[in-house]
Amino acid sequence: MTHQQTIELSTRGRGTTEITAEVAQIVGAARIESGLVNVFVLHTSCSVVLTENADPSVRQDLETLARRWVPDGDADYRHSDEGDDDMAAHGRNILAGSSITVPVSKGKLLLGTWQGIYLWEHRTHAHRRKIVVSVLG
Amino acid sequence: MTHQQTIELSTRGRGTTEITAEVAQIVGAARIESGLVNVFVLHTSCSVVLTENADPSVRQDLETLARRWVPDGDADYRHSDEGDDDMAAHGRNILAGSSITVPVSKGKLLLGTWQGIYLWEHRTHAHRRKIVVSVLG
Amino acid sequence: MTHQQTIELSTRGRGTTEITAEVAQIVGAARIESGLVNVFVLHTSCSVVLTENADPSVRQDLETLARRWVPDGDADYRHSDEGDDDMAAHGRNILAGSSITVPVSKGKLLLGTWQGIYLWEHRTHAHRRKIVVSVLG
Repeated sequence: MTHQQTIELSTRGRGTTEITAEVAQIVGAARIESGLVNVFVLHTSCSVVLTENADPSVRQDLETLARRWVPDGDADYRHSDEGDDDMAAHGRNILAGSSITVPVSKGKLLLGTWQGIYLWEHRTHAHRRKIVVSVLG
Repeated sequence: MTHQQTIELSTRGRGTTEITAEVAQIVGAARIESGLVNVFVLHTSCSVVLTENADPSVRQDLETLARRWVPDGDADYRHSDEGDDDMAAHGRNILAGSSITVPVSKGKLLLGTWQGIYLWEHRTHAHRRKIVVSVLG
Repeated sequence: MTHQQTIELSTRGRGTTEITAEVAQIVGAARIESGLVNVFVLHTSCSVVLTENADPSVRQDLETLARRWVPDGDADYRHSDEGDDDMAAHGRNILAGSSITVPVSKGKLLLGTWQGIYLWEHRTHAHRRKIVVSVLG
């Protein structure tokens, strides 16, 4: 059995938006006792990730790391149609991924105490993003 | 219900081979209305990734980035049995991953407009690669 | 149909612990002919990864690479409550991921000849870790 719903949200440019509650609500609505939930972005310049949900500094430090892993406006990039953050966003998406898959247990999202689900915007400007949530069991 | 099929292909060494059409065809053959499809490589020196499908420069730039993330023939590597690209390929596989999981909706692969599915060969020489496609719903 | 079981293990600090046999046993117990198995850690400072299972040097070299990708005790980190390896562990978790999803075929885990499943501890000290294994088909 599959239950599928789409989340749409607007980002304010680079940074994370927590979507744990939205995903948990869709899992609850699915009425699936045991299974998996996949959370997938329909874009190649942002990511869905799991990370520490207590101290916001963790997500700021991830931003610091991402700037080193994939520099903006690097002289070696051929793809720069949409600005210095264009190719950088695609590189970050390869490293951080496009989706996560999480267990569903007793009808609920099964996360560790410190795990939260975040949309991570990799473009510097605000964007409208679509996320597909699929619950299977 | 599960529908499972294997794709085999030959790479020409480092670089990407698009497999979106092959995966879409298997999803169509599965006759599953709603669910997930997992695309998995049976190897630790190549990856299956989602990335931008319009401008081929994006995939060239990913290659440029990967050479920096995981240098070939680094003096600190202990594992170099098969040459300078051996350990580099395993490192790239950890960063870019071995599989992707994508929603199936209305019997079709549900991708964003600019998302394509690629086999990314990390070895410098040509290899024969096996990819398992599993459709669940 | 879903079969779900939890693996608990103690790590000795940074490094990999192979869990292929434990996952294969759970897949066997699930009695699911064809499907997928997801192996998920309930933590944000370790990873579940697939990598080469023959030469242990590969996992040592991954450790060398990870120290470069995400340095310990970097002066730019704001999050360092639990020591120099605290933020580094969260950064490694983003790069290497929290879970893998692998095909199940003929009632068995379907891996390539050289693929093994590992828990990769990113903290320097020993930790108790919980891994949820979900088999769907």
